[in-house]
Amino acid sequence: MEKECYMEHYKFMAEALKEAKKALNEGGIPIGAILVNNGKIVSKGHNKLLQRDSPILHAEVDCIESAGRLNGKDYKNSTLYTTLSPCDMCSGMILLYKIPKVVMGENKTLKGPEDYLMKNGVELINLDMGNCKELIESFIRKNPEVWDKEIEKIS
Amino acid sequence: MEKECYMEHYKFMAEALKEAKKALNEGGIPIGAILVNNGKIVSKGHNKLLQRDSPILHAEVDCIESAGRLNGKDYKNSTLYTTLSPCDMCSGMILLYKIPKVVMGENKTLKGPEDYLMKNGVELINLDMGNCKELIESFIRKNPEVWDKEIEKIS
Repeated sequence: MEKECYMEHYKFMAEALKEAKKALNEGGIPIGAILVNNGKIVSKGHNKLLQRDSPILHAEVDCIESAGRLNGKDYKNSTLYTTLSPCDMCSGMILLYKIPKVVMGENKTLKGPEDYLMKNGVELINLDMGNCKELIESFIRKNPEVWDKEIEKIS
Repeated sequence: MEKECYMEHYKFMAEALKEAKKALNEGGIPIGAILVNNGKIVSKGHNKLLQRDSPILHAEVDCIESAGRLNGKDYKNSTLYTTLSPCDMCSGMILLYKIPKVVMGENKTLKGPEDYLMKNGVELINLDMGNCKELIESFIRKNPEVWDKEIEKIS
């Protein structure tokens, strides 16, 4: 059962990775997210900071925004997949809508307030996937000035 | 000096209240926000959940989004004015961009994670203004089903 569950996590993370690659193809930062409810994808999103000159459209925010206004029970039965550990803002959004479970691709490139999420009852699973890391690390190597500018804002 | 400072807070909160009234005139939830840097308004925003079928566009998020991608030092020198205590998501956004000071109109209608913000170094000032409360309470009295539906999502 445990193994089957993780196979599902990898399947959905592959969809989040496709979203991350969409961002990259648009000239954006390759981070993607997927909202899943009862084994079905409700919405998809990817980082659009550069494409839209937006400080808000992280992959997770874009994904939740794309779903429109769901009912409370929909959020409370959902799992959010994201290729990178959610930041303060995205973590706050997860807490606001009581999304109970977050599956992340990795947390080496950046790590959000994971202890705060867990303390507030959110289940976190880190798949620690090499291809999630490689995609964003390759972007950072090719665009250090873009990345440094973003990091300077939040440091 | 202290009195002069508070006069400035009331002046900017009046602008945030104008934004809240814009939301009301659009059929939305009357909450407004203003970002101020060096005594000047950088951007304005209001709650657009109903108008845009958006789970994301709280007044504070709309205000930060309207400003576009600022430099780190701009966020770090700013004050965010909001007619209502910022929720988990908006508080997370405040922490992400290291906005050091938040002035709120009230926190009786809803209260966000104020202790968490303060623990993380954000200065909070609550003006506890009757007209901020009256505006949103009047909306709730006239639209209880709309309000209850929003509250159900985040409860």
